[in-house]
Amino acid sequence: MAVELTAHHLIAQHRPTLDRALEAIRTRAYWSPHPEHPKAYGEDGSLDAAAGKAAFDALLGGRLDLGQPGTDDWTGGEVSPYGIELGITYPHADLDVLLPAMRAGQGAWRDAGAEMRAVVCLEILKRINDRTHEFAHAVMHTSGQAFMMAFQAGGPHAQDRGLEAVAYAYVEQVRTPDTAEWTKPQGKRDPLTLTKTFKPVPRGVALVIGCNTFPTWNGYPGLFASLATGNAVLVKPHPRAVLPLALTVQVARQVLAEAGFDPNLVALAAERPGEGIAKTLAVRPEIRIIDYTGSTAFGDWLETHARQAQVYTEKAGVNTVVVESTGNYKGMLSNLAFSLSLYSGQMCTTPQNLLIPRDGIATDEGPKSYDEVVADLARSVGGLLGDDARANALLGAIVNPDVKARLEAAAGLGEVALASREVANPDFPGAVVRTPVIVKLDGAKPDAEAAYMSECFGPVAFAVAVDSAQDAVELLRRTIRDKGAMTVGAYTTSEEVERAVEEVCLEECAQLSLNLTGGVYVNQTAAFSDFHGSGGNPAANAALSDGAFVANRFRVVEVRREA
Amino acid sequence: MAVELTAHHLIAQHRPTLDRALEAIRTRAYWSPHPEHPKAYGEDGSLDAAAGKAAFDALLGGRLDLGQPGTDDWTGGEVSPYGIELGITYPHADLDVLLPAMRAGQGAWRDAGAEMRAVVCLEILKRINDRTHEFAHAVMHTSGQAFMMAFQAGGPHAQDRGLEAVAYAYVEQVRTPDTAEWTKPQGKRDPLTLTKTFKPVPRGVALVIGCNTFPTWNGYPGLFASLATGNAVLVKPHPRAVLPLALTVQVARQVLAEAGFDPNLVALAAERPGEGIAKTLAVRPEIRIIDYTGSTAFGDWLETHARQAQVYTEKAGVNTVVVESTGNYKGMLSNLAFSLSLYSGQMCTTPQNLLIPRDGIATDEGPKSYDEVVADLARSVGGLLGDDARANALLGAIVNPDVKARLEAAAGLGEVALASREVANPDFPGAVVRTPVIVKLDGAKPDAEAAYMSECFGPVAFAVAVDSAQDAVELLRRTIRDKGAMTVGAYTTSEEVERAVEEVCLEECAQLSLNLTGGVYVNQTAAFSDFHGSGGNPAANAALSDGAFVANRFRVVEVRREA
Repeated sequence: MAVELTAHHLIAQHRPTLDRALEAIRTRAYWSPHPEHPKAYGEDGSLDAAAGKAAFDALLGGRLDLGQPGTDDWTGGEVSPYGIELGITYPHADLDVLLPAMRAGQGAWRDAGAEMRAVVCLEILKRINDRTHEFAHAVMHTSGQAFMMAFQAGGPHAQDRGLEAVAYAYVEQVRTPDTAEWTKPQGKRDPLTLTKTFKPVPRGVALVIGCNTFPTWNGYPGLFASLATGNAVLVKPHPRAVLPLALTVQVARQVLAEAGFDPNLVALAAERPGEGIAKTLAVRPEIRIIDYTGSTAFGDWLETHARQAQVYTEKAGVNTVVVESTGNYKGMLSNLAFSLSLYSGQMCTTPQNLLIPRDGIATDEGPKSYDEVVADLARSVGGLLGDDARANALLGAIVNPDVKARLEAAAGLGEVALASREVANPDFPGAVVRTPVIVKLDGAKPDAEAAYMSECFGPVAFAVAVDSAQDAVELLRRTIRDKGAMTVGAYTTSEEVERAVEEVCLEECAQLSLNLTGGVYVNQTAAFSDFHGSGGNPAANAALSDGAFVANRFRVVEVRREA
Repeated sequence: MAVELTAHHLIAQHRPTLDRALEAIRTRAYWSPHPEHPKAYGEDGSLDAAAGKAAFDALLGGRLDLGQPGTDDWTGGEVSPYGIELGITYPHADLDVLLPAMRAGQGAWRDAGAEMRAVVCLEILKRINDRTHEFAHAVMHTSGQAFMMAFQAGGPHAQDRGLEAVAYAYVEQVRTPDTAEWTKPQGKRDPLTLTKTFKPVPRGVALVIGCNTFPTWNGYPGLFASLATGNAVLVKPHPRAVLPLALTVQVARQVLAEAGFDPNLVALAAERPGEGIAKTLAVRPEIRIIDYTGSTAFGDWLETHARQAQVYTEKAGVNTVVVESTGNYKGMLSNLAFSLSLYSGQMCTTPQNLLIPRDGIATDEGPKSYDEVVADLARSVGGLLGDDARANALLGAIVNPDVKARLEAAAGLGEVALASREVANPDFPGAVVRTPVIVKLDGAKPDAEAAYMSECFGPVAFAVAVDSAQDAVELLRRTIRDKGAMTVGAYTTSEEVERAVEEVCLEECAQLSLNLTGGVYVNQTAAFSDFHGSGGNPAANAALSDGAFVANRFRVVEVRREA
């Protein structure tokens, strides 16, 4: 096989980007090599909007042949949350053929070393980036995200998270030198001398179990962390969101082959309806690493049963915002309204419980009662989503019938402060588009607690009346400890309350956003700077990304000889 | 409380040592700040030999009161493998009092920051180092190690491993800055700006479950890694080896208090005979980290049941040396003889299976048959241990009756090439001292396989006849994969065999020593340079020490505010 991508070429091309990423994770200042604006694409080989749309359309109704060994069938059946059937089929694998084939190329991939693996990963990300417009449609029509969000979160932001994982993986592997000369003095006798070599070795085959809502954003960190540390990676997409990860696998296989490696180092495991191969795969002895995003029940099952593997899970949590006081009432309301509305609240980071003292809060517009705060927030959401075009652009579509059912049931849990509204999507009449519901609950009532202490994934927010700031802080603590949280927000002008909330977040290990009133939202994190999750509360056992996310995906084998 | 050890003083005192340790783990060249020679002690406040012995003697028959809260009783009953009763009692804890007390000081310890925690740990290690002579007797009379080994492995080498863990813990925590300014351009609009703070936070209370044979060497990495990352540490010593860890806890509590921290951040959990509190402790919700050295059965139990904790285990393995050919036959024999004899083979790193082709091996002294190699090795061990004084100094004492029973049973497993010999210890008539047994086994026979494929912990070596070098390599692979290995050794002059053995070690993840014929032994590793275990085969799920050993003992909590 002619190697088209030489190490020299790849390193020259990508090493500066890698170095810049390494600097970014050290300083955590803003940085991204992946433009966010759709108009930034279309030159230097990247697809523009029209070409991306055409590429996506060309995939519909076809077979995505990845050239994988052990393909015994074709399967697929994705229906877009916007109502169209994708009609794409993917390879279905005989695991007893595919898994051994994936291991065959691991020796060469291991011996290529950390830098070569990193720049190959960066080439994969570069080619994905070039096809961002195509991926945007793939993400939109599997997750139900609105186009602009699918473009940004599914494109450059996901690519950023992938690159961040590569940077962490690289730096972790080069902490130990390739060789060392060891000379130990022995007094008057000759010193003891050894020559030592150290090599990062992979654990085996890594499994990425994708999710429905953020197939690329949540899939890339594990995929690239495992690949960059020398492992082969098998991607098991969510059956409703196969396409974005299938395209990712396709690009990875192409790049690996062009760089002279075995393309089977990355493969797809699409499943037949109801096949449930995640459970089968998760306990296969070949699988030594698992990355999973999804329900707490299956995440806990993986942590308990996949004992042969390192298991990284992002599960469910209950996200809280403490609303105690504010110096910018309008800013707070509009910031919260946006956070509740974005992608119909279908983010693992969307706030669910707004804890508001029943005696009201102090604001720059004077004191506001609990009822006023809730009514003003409802008005703010209503205003934000009053125009259908803007509502569609913000909300996207409801990803699946379960979310719709939860939304409809939520209205029965308490007094509805803002009813959910059906929004028509003129481009996609089949899309199910709904505005968020805001439900008032009394934090002191046990039946209310049953509601607000469970994750109600989707466009549902609970305005929970609490006795005091102290009560809010204690409820926050209990919620994080018992249910986990991907995010915590707080609005307060009191230094004392701020300290108390911060202390709870430090003790219970949750990421805190304080007094956001502008264009940054509690549910958004930026790669290279913000950690996604903490890995220290029940919502997730890992954070994206840090040293712990990569350090145990490989091991270092030492060989020592007398010098 | 008057703080006697200020941050300024501690940083001035220990920061240079920390920096030197950080350099050592990067270069992995030889380094240690802890002298190995007994005569190096006695100045600058350290105990000399006589003072150390006197300090140890003063402990005998007394009560070691650590001033711990919740002490409801006193317990102890250590009998030295050298025959003397220590007669020391230790606090027995009411866990419902002790564990909450251990958490009380965690906020201040957390807020002190990574550097302060590191230098406090270094002060603890310094004071332990000053008492190395005292610790040597404590280790000798609990583990059964001979004095010089107890001195070195239980003293400076253990202190090195502790310092190494502190260095890894420190550098891991400072990879993320304390604060960051984040400014994201927004085209013509004002940029988005956030001020972010990042703080390493502990997981909770860490549990160290000590072992009988290397209470300090195997205990210090987990203890110091957890403490340096902000956790409180509860030390549960092996009931037969309490004293070395009780003294360690005593020193740690003194230093913590003098530095203005809560001494309850480190505590001892001694148990009554048969109480088995490790199982109780391991699943307590307060316990979030466990470090364990011991049997595979209990290590596996911990990994399966202590789901609320990060579990780091060093269990049992079957260590192999492939003997294929050598350019230094005498050197090989004497090196192997020493490895088999040191501490009566009671090291997790001692070779057990010597794989020797049944057709013999090539050497610089001409071809040697399988029988000749085994006979020459037996003679070499016999010569090394022929003098009782030297034998006592090398072998130490048999640590417990189980080891003695296994040794006695081993002679029945095959043809005995070298019988175990009882050695009298004139200083300690009660000591059980035995030379190793070497048993010949045919690798192809199933009943032999049952013997050599199990760990036979103690002074037992199997000379396993194999069909060929290739057969040896395959058996090596199977042994590591199925049973795990802390160490692998190989003797070969063939580049092809060397590559094959190396490839097996890379694929099955085991640490390899090649052609050792001088004063470095396969069972010894040096902190800052050698990894102890790989963390990638069944013998241990962690290596001492690397990034993975520390990275998940803490989490980073981010607080972000609009700038």
